[in-house]
Amino acid sequence: MAEKRVVDRLEELRRRIDSLDEALVRLLSERAACALEIGRVKKLAGLDVYQPAREVEVLAHVQHINPGPLDDAAVRRLFERVIDEARRLERLAEAEEERRRSGIG
Amino acid sequence: MAEKRVVDRLEELRRRIDSLDEALVRLLSERAACALEIGRVKKLAGLDVYQPAREVEVLAHVQHINPGPLDDAAVRRLFERVIDEARRLERLAEAEEERRRSGIG
Repeated sequence: MAEKRVVDRLEELRRRIDSLDEALVRLLSERAACALEIGRVKKLAGLDVYQPAREVEVLAHVQHINPGPLDDAAVRRLFERVIDEARRLERLAEAEEERRRSGIG
Repeated sequence: MAEKRVVDRLEELRRRIDSLDEALVRLLSERAACALEIGRVKKLAGLDVYQPAREVEVLAHVQHINPGPLDDAAVRRLFERVIDEARRLERLAEAEEERRRSGIG
């Protein structure tokens, strides 16, 4: 490939990655908001927030629909991080709620 | 909330998460394919495949556009995993290529 063509092709691929990253950030943020909302609904209803069975289901689902080129173990690791961050956010929200309540009470 | 309404709301949120996960898997797969293609183009052109400056740029970009509720450190951790998996895939592809070449040669 001529140098100019290489540079153009790399630039095109990087622009595509940047736009994929923008979509990923949007979806990850929406997913985190949904996970927070699930935590709120469960807490209001007095249900247990942590659900290992649901996590197994989520991980099985994403591996099942994985089209490649990432292997299933990679997809699993990626979603383990996604789930971890949702859990972390949930804990932060709970701590914030506690603080607010003890500030009022 | 009445029990039925809680169950319905949780089911709705979980369905939404499942559909977000499907979109995430598609985008992550497309991103991984782009990263592999970048590696291929660079190798053909004799360029260095690893580019720490580009990784810094990618991480700055996703933190810059982060709308919340995830904090910037969480978004950073998520994309560090995404970049790690792309790098791992790249290494696997290279090893495969080497194996093929040494099989032929």
